[in-house]
Amino acid sequence: MRALEERIQEKGRVLDGNILKVDSFFNHQVDPELMMLMGKDFAEHFREKGITKVLTLEVSGIAMALTAALELGVPMVFAKKIKSLTLNDQVFVSQVYSYTKETTYEIRVDKRFLNDQDRVLIIDDFLANGEALKGLIDLCDQAKAQVAGIGIGIEKVFQGGGDKARQAGYEVYSQARIKAFEEGKVIFE
Amino acid sequence: MRALEERIQEKGRVLDGNILKVDSFFNHQVDPELMMLMGKDFAEHFREKGITKVLTLEVSGIAMALTAALELGVPMVFAKKIKSLTLNDQVFVSQVYSYTKETTYEIRVDKRFLNDQDRVLIIDDFLANGEALKGLIDLCDQAKAQVAGIGIGIEKVFQGGGDKARQAGYEVYSQARIKAFEEGKVIFE
Repeated sequence: MRALEERIQEKGRVLDGNILKVDSFFNHQVDPELMMLMGKDFAEHFREKGITKVLTLEVSGIAMALTAALELGVPMVFAKKIKSLTLNDQVFVSQVYSYTKETTYEIRVDKRFLNDQDRVLIIDDFLANGEALKGLIDLCDQAKAQVAGIGIGIEKVFQGGGDKARQAGYEVYSQARIKAFEEGKVIFE
Repeated sequence: MRALEERIQEKGRVLDGNILKVDSFFNHQVDPELMMLMGKDFAEHFREKGITKVLTLEVSGIAMALTAALELGVPMVFAKKIKSLTLNDQVFVSQVYSYTKETTYEIRVDKRFLNDQDRVLIIDDFLANGEALKGLIDLCDQAKAQVAGIGIGIEKVFQGGGDKARQAGYEVYSQARIKAFEEGKVIFE
């Protein structure tokens, strides 16, 4: 998606260790018009999939999941990150391993908000190793909801999470696919 | 704001201890069209204030802050909650006491995203004791940014945070002002 790629080229900063900072428009300061364009683009891509719900994970996926859900005319649900789980049979829970923080955290969705009638569009801001995505898919599996598509803002293709999901049969659509960082520059596929 | 009040009456659940659950449309599952209406309403209310930025706090304020910022044509910034602070002079940091969790947490905004030229509209989903709001105002003060208005989704008037802010001279506009809970019902002002 050209608007996002251009913004990354213009405003993104590549730090040591293959870290891309996009906090001036994407995940700390947020450009609402870009989020609208992204939401429209996701909706257009998945329009024919009979989506009944958009699922994301707090925090940074919320803006683009909201605008996609608005365009598709369906509710948006964000899974919550929790530190300690008080035993509760009213929620679906999954574990997510974070490579950056080297720790596992839990994500949950209330059982009222995902069910076996749902056709879910999963949306997230980043896709790298795919650990968060695995957790979101797991929540849908527990609910016996159908994962009808996966929409990603920025995919770091070289970290393999996207290809793993595609090989598992999911349709993954990423708006910006980053092949590599070279000398502080972003190289798109 | 009628659309929000009606939805609270219809879908909100009052639990023991004056807790209002609005997780089916507001802060877990989210109705994007309601968020658009709220954003438009905030924008209309503060249109003449010369707003340059909308500031909220992760997580649940993001949806309505985004739509307000979209309508006003300005960026949205969300302050981040952090557990432990690595010393860093590139961020504004404030402390927020949580009555529900009986703990203090820190919120931060990168200094690049708030400055003395900004006229800030602070938006949050709930206003109860006003502790989170105090933290957001403090971040603006540190940046020497002007707080040009405060927009709240649901104000629990009886908890006093809104009146404290009004007495301090801020313009606080709340879309739903709850006076009391009576026998499991929500009473609006």
